[in-house]
Formats: sequence, structure tokens, C-alpha cells
Amino acid sequence: MTQPVYDRVALIGLGLIASSMFWAIKRSGLAGEVTGYARSAETRETARRIGLCDRVCESAAEAVEGADLVVLCVPVGAMAPVMQQIAPVLKPGATLSDVGSVKGHVVEAILPHLPEGVHFVPAHPLAGTEHSGPESGFAELFDNRWCLLVPVEGSDRDAVDRLRRLWQGMGANVDEMDADHHDLVLAVTSHTPHLIAYTMVGVADDLRRVTDSEVIKYSAAGFRDFTRIAASDPTMWRDVFLTNKEATLEILGRFTEELFALQRAIRTGDGDHLHDYFTHTRAIRRGIIEAGQDTDAPDFGRGQAGGQTGGTDK
Amino acid sequence: MTQPVYDRVALIGLGLIASSMFWAIKRSGLAGEVTGYARSAETRETARRIGLCDRVCESAAEAVEGADLVVLCVPVGAMAPVMQQIAPVLKPGATLSDVGSVKGHVVEAILPHLPEGVHFVPAHPLAGTEHSGPESGFAELFDNRWCLLVPVEGSDRDAVDRLRRLWQGMGANVDEMDADHHDLVLAVTSHTPHLIAYTMVGVADDLRRVTDSEVIKYSAAGFRDFTRIAASDPTMWRDVFLTNKEATLEILGRFTEELFALQRAIRTGDGDHLHDYFTHTRAIRRGIIEAGQDTDAPDFGRGQAGGQTGGTDK
Ligand SMILES: NC(=O)c1ccc[n+]([C@@H]2O[C@H](COP(=O)([O-])OP(=O)(O)OC[C@H]3O[C@@H](n4cnc5c(N)ncnc54)[C@H](OP(=O)(O)O)[C@@H]3O)[C@@H](O)[C@H]2O)c1
Ligand SMILES: NC(=O)c1ccc[n+]([C@@H]2O[C@H](COP(=O)([O-])OP(=O)(O)OC[C@H]3O[C@@H](n4cnc5c(N)ncnc54)[C@H](OP(=O)(O)O)[C@@H]3O)[C@@H](O)[C@H]2O)c1
Repeated sequence: MTQPVYDRVALIGLGLIASSMFWAIKRSGLAGEVTGYARSAETRETARRIGLCDRVCESAAEAVEGADLVVLCVPVGAMAPVMQQIAPVLKPGATLSDVGSVKGHVVEAILPHLPEGVHFVPAHPLAGTEHSGPESGFAELFDNRWCLLVPVEGSDRDAVDRLRRLWQGMGANVDEMDADHHDLVLAVTSHTPHLIAYTMVGVADDLRRVTDSEVIKYSAAGFRDFTRIAASDPTMWRDVFLTNKEATLEILGRFTEELFALQRAIRTGDGDHLHDYFTHTRAIRRGIIEAGQDTDAPDFGRGQAGGQTGGTDK
Repeated sequence: MTQPVYDRVALIGLGLIASSMFWAIKRSGLAGEVTGYARSAETRETARRIGLCDRVCESAAEAVEGADLVVLCVPVGAMAPVMQQIAPVLKPGATLSDVGSVKGHVVEAILPHLPEGVHFVPAHPLAGTEHSGPESGFAELFDNRWCLLVPVEGSDRDAVDRLRRLWQGMGANVDEMDADHHDLVLAVTSHTPHLIAYTMVGVADDLRRVTDSEVIKYSAAGFRDFTRIAASDPTMWRDVFLTNKEATLEILGRFTEELFALQRAIRTGDGDHLHDYFTHTRAIRRGIIEAGQDTDAPDFGRGQAGGQTGGTDK
């Protein structure tokens, strides 16, 4: 058991991330009491049934009252309306954070409503699965994954360090960067790959009329990885693309340029171009294995049980 | 132990697929003797050292002599030259097969050289990893995966059924389809997804100059899945795209159309379009889970050990 980092934590939104945070906080005794609120009665009911949160409240304001840390765990597009509901009851000296996958937009949405004396420290855990909702969380989700803190101008150093201790207590490694940089890096490593996966699965779906169920039946890795990615929550990803528009469109532009060059190489039979390109991309994979973000071991259990990489967000 | 299906099997090319076949054949005693040949002295040496094949030969012709089943396990573009070397020594009544990822091209490359009385039964196991070479194989690779047999006009029924028994003995489920259909289905489920993954990794590599090692450091699922795919053998994939050109270009055309539509939706802020599209693609994932091609269980061990989906080919 670690020393509690906060007396009272409030989680607003009770989906994959919030429920994983709750179980991770409980695992290590990181908070005295954790309150929670979700928009729908159904989710609140489920949360009570499975013991998610020490106290599930009937309004966001009620959950937030008296909290030392408030974490917004709703889709990026819902941050501003939620903030409006809770701003009046935020305790002076409290820390406000979020877990949104886009940071620039969240900062813009929150700052105008931030009461004097409340410390705002945006965060983004780079961990997730394609599942969502209150029953999808588990205490180990953040273990050995990164959580990026994105302090804003004037963020209180003590508040940042305390939030860092919370995330470390939940198993994560913590780094700091600014919002614009975060949004560009994530556009490359997560947002654009997701859009591409969604697109490829859409094309396949379209072709099912031609090939019937074969596309599914014979899909192994490659396409199967894409379908897992493309199974993620539609609302979350709609909000990501609408709010990280600029960086995503920039990366997409580069992507289509490169794809056209490879397409041309295929059409003209330019095998050397293809071979060089494919040789080049091998190196980056090695970098990832060396950085400890994945293992090099073949997965023998694949196709039988649990041989699944899981995460969908960055 | 099963009854041997063939007295003598020859494997030409000793990479991932051939070595996995050897271990799977030995696991269940499916052949009396297995001979092998690889182009480079280095690979033949490695094969001898690790006990891959009962006998490693110094030429393809030597390995093939007297074999009841010959399986070409070389890149698709190397099938024709290899065939020319072995055609004169193929035993009348023997079965010739291959494991190439493209079938139309292989059929065209092999048929003109096929001696009278030799049964040609092309095959494609839908299983693989991103690793290659003689040391990358393992007996379980084909367990519960599909192997597609692609009989050509005049393929002997008994020869087809016998090869089916071999693949079933190696753990695979076997289906039959024609070459054109195979190449279209694979273009959707494997070839185009691989090209897209290669492209995205290439874009990221390009951007490393901007974002330094962060793209690697913070890459989790999404991009990380892509890098695994893009780590596959460059020669194998070059050959796949050069020989399954037509189907790949058709699917790529549809892909870029759909991607442009999504890109426009992002630019114009059309959240409904994005949400509808993402909701739609969720369904295909469910189909895959129901078809038993993957599991729905979250992978708790991810990022720590072996949480890797593995396969790269269809
Ligand atoms: N999933 C990932 O891989 C991942 C990873 C890192 C960060 N994130 C970020 O974490 C946040 C939460 O994601 P999640 O995966 O936990 O989502 P989730 O499982 O879908 O849960 C979302 C929660 O937000 C609530 N909510 C949705 N729309 C709302 C609205 N308009 N007003 C108030 N509450 C609303 C939902 O309430 P109901 O249940 O009542 O509908 C639900 O409790 C998002 O900002 C996402 O970008 C996600
Ligand atoms: N990897 C997959 O995911 C997968 C899945 C299903 C089907 N396939 C198909 O299976 C076949 C083999 O793939 P693999 O993954 O086993 O490849 P691999 O591990 O790279 O091994 C290829 C083997 O072919 C030999 N070879 C390469 N070029 C040759 C040439 N020009 N002439 C003679 N021999 C040559 C190599 O010899 P050296 O070692 O001496 O260079 C090596 O032994 C390919 O047709 C591929 O499309 C692959």
C-alpha cells in the first residue's frame, strides 16, 4: 500500500479509462475516497452494481464537491459542457485534470471556465483497448504505459508533481510535453493510423457483397489488426478527428503522397522502389522493440485464446 | 502419431513457412523423410545445425529426386526459376505444391514447365509472423489457421485430397477456391492492409526528424500494430505486389476514394459522417470474433511480454 496521494478524487465519465483508473487507484490505495458520475442512469446503475467508485453521484456537481482531484473522463467534445456544470463547485486549491486523447482543444475548452485557485493539469494516458463502458476497465491498463502530462501556462509545479505521483502509482511512466507537440505526435502514432484502419475496414465491408463472408473468414493479421482498431468507440474517435483536425490532415496529406508513390511503383512494376521502401520501414520496428514498447516474441497462442494486442488509443 | 501421408517430402526454400511445415510434419509423423534445399550455403548450414530437415541437399534437384510431394516455399517471384531447375527430376505421379501468397501468378509461372504425370496443387496457408528465415519457424504456426488449396484445371482429385490431409495433419483447416478469387480476397484481407501499414510507417519515419524518437517511444497500439506488419520480409512483399498488381490496385483505388471522403468530413467538420462510418465498421469486427478468428478478451499482459498478435500474411 502506498500513501494516498489525494484525499478525495472525482471521476466524471465512467467508461474504460475512468473505470481502469478506479481499479488502479484501489489496487495501491492512492486515494481516500473516489466519487464518480456518468451521464446515463444506466451507467451509474452498472457502476453501483459492480462496485465502481466508493460513491456514485446523481450529478457531476455532487461528485466534484469537496474533491482534491477532479478528472474529466468523457469524450473530448464533451469536456466543455461538463466543465460548465462543475466549475461553480470546484474547491479552491483543487487540481482539475482530464484524460482526453487531444490536448490543444481541451485546453481551449477548459481554460475560459477555470475558477481562480484551481490548478489545471491536462493529461493523456497512452493506453486503451477497443472496448468501452464502465465494465471494460481493469487495474493493469496503465502498467508500464506512458501518461503524458501537458501543463498549461501557470500550472502549479506542486499540482503537476502530485498528479505525476498518482499516475506513477497507477503503474504508468510519466512525461511532460506541450499541447501542440502532443497533438502532432499523437496524430502520427495514433490518430491517422486509426483513420486508415477505419477506412480499410469500410472498404472490406463494402466488398462483402462480392466476397460474402470470406473477408471475415480468411482475415488473419494485417486486416484483423485493423478491425480491432476500427472497433473502438465511434464518439471518442469522431471527437478526436474533429478536434485534432489540423495535425491529422497534415499527416494524412503526407500519407496519401507516399501511398501514391507506392501505387505508381506497383503499376509500373518498379520492384526496386518497393523493396527499398519495405527495407527502410523494418528499421523503425526494431526501434520500437528496443524502446521496450513491444516484444519480439512470436505469439504461439494466436487464434486460440487471448492473442490480442488490445489497445486502440495511442 | 498419425499415419504418414507421404513417404518423401521435399521443401524448396527453408524460411518461415518451410521450417514451420517441417516441425509440424515431425510433430505428427506425417512424412517418412523430409529433404530440404535453400539457395544460400548459410541457410543450408543453419538448417543442418538446428536439425531442420532429415537431409539438407546441395541442389534443388537433389532434394526433389524421388519425392512424393514437393513444396515450393520461396518468394512468389522465385517460383519460375526454381521450377525450371526441378522440372526434369520431378517423379511421375508426384504432387507439386507451393505456399505462395499470390496464386494466379504462380499458376501461370509453373504450368508451362509442368511435366506430364505430375499433379500440381497450389496452396496458401493463411498464417505467418513478421519473422523470416530458417530459425523463425515453429510447429504450431498453422494450428487452427486456414490453408487455401487452389486446384488448377485437371488437378487430380486424389492428389488434392492427399495434400488436404497433410495440411489438416499440420493443424490447419482447409478450403478450396480458384486462383482469381483467392487473389481478390487476399488483396482485401492482407495485401492492401500491408501496403497501407508500410506507408504509414514510412510517413512516421520521415517525421522522426521532427519529433525525434518520440514517435517510437509513444507508439502504442494503432501505430505499433502497423510497425509489426511493416517489419515483414521486403522481398516477399515486393513480389506479392508485383504479382497481385491488378487486385491490389483495384482495392487501393477504393481505399483512396473512401479516405478522401473521410478527409473531407474532417475538414468540413462533418461529425455525423464520421460517427456513422465508425459505427458501421464496428460490426465487421464482431463478425470476425464470431467467426472465431480472434478473441474478444482484453490482453492484460500487453506491453510486458508476448502480447503480440504475430502474423503478417493474410
Ligand atoms: N479508449 C481509449 O483507448 C482511450 C485512451 C486514452 C484516452 N482516452 C480518452 O479518454 C476519454 C474517455 O474515453 P473512454 O474510452 O473511457 O470512453 P468510454 O468508455 O466510451 O466512456 C465515456 C464516458 O463518458 C460519458 N459521456 C459520453 N458523452 C458524454 C457527454 N456528452 N456528457 C457527459 N458524459 C458523457 C459516458 O457516459 P455514459 O456511459 O452515460 O454514456 C461514459 O461514462 C476520452 O476523452 C478519450 O479520448 C481514451
Ligand atoms: N511469411 C508469411 O507471413 C507467409 C505466409 C504465407 C505464405 N507465405 C509465402 O511463403 C513463401 C515463403 O515465405 P517465407 O516467409 O517462408 O520466406 P522466408 O522466411 O524469407 O524464406 C524464403 C526462402 O526462400 C529462399 N529464396 C529466396 N529467394 C530465392 C530465389 N530467388 N531462389 C531460390 N530460393 C530463394 C530463401 O533462401 P535463402 O535463405 O538462402 O535466402 C529462403 O530459404 C513466399 O512465397 C510467401 O509469399 C509467407
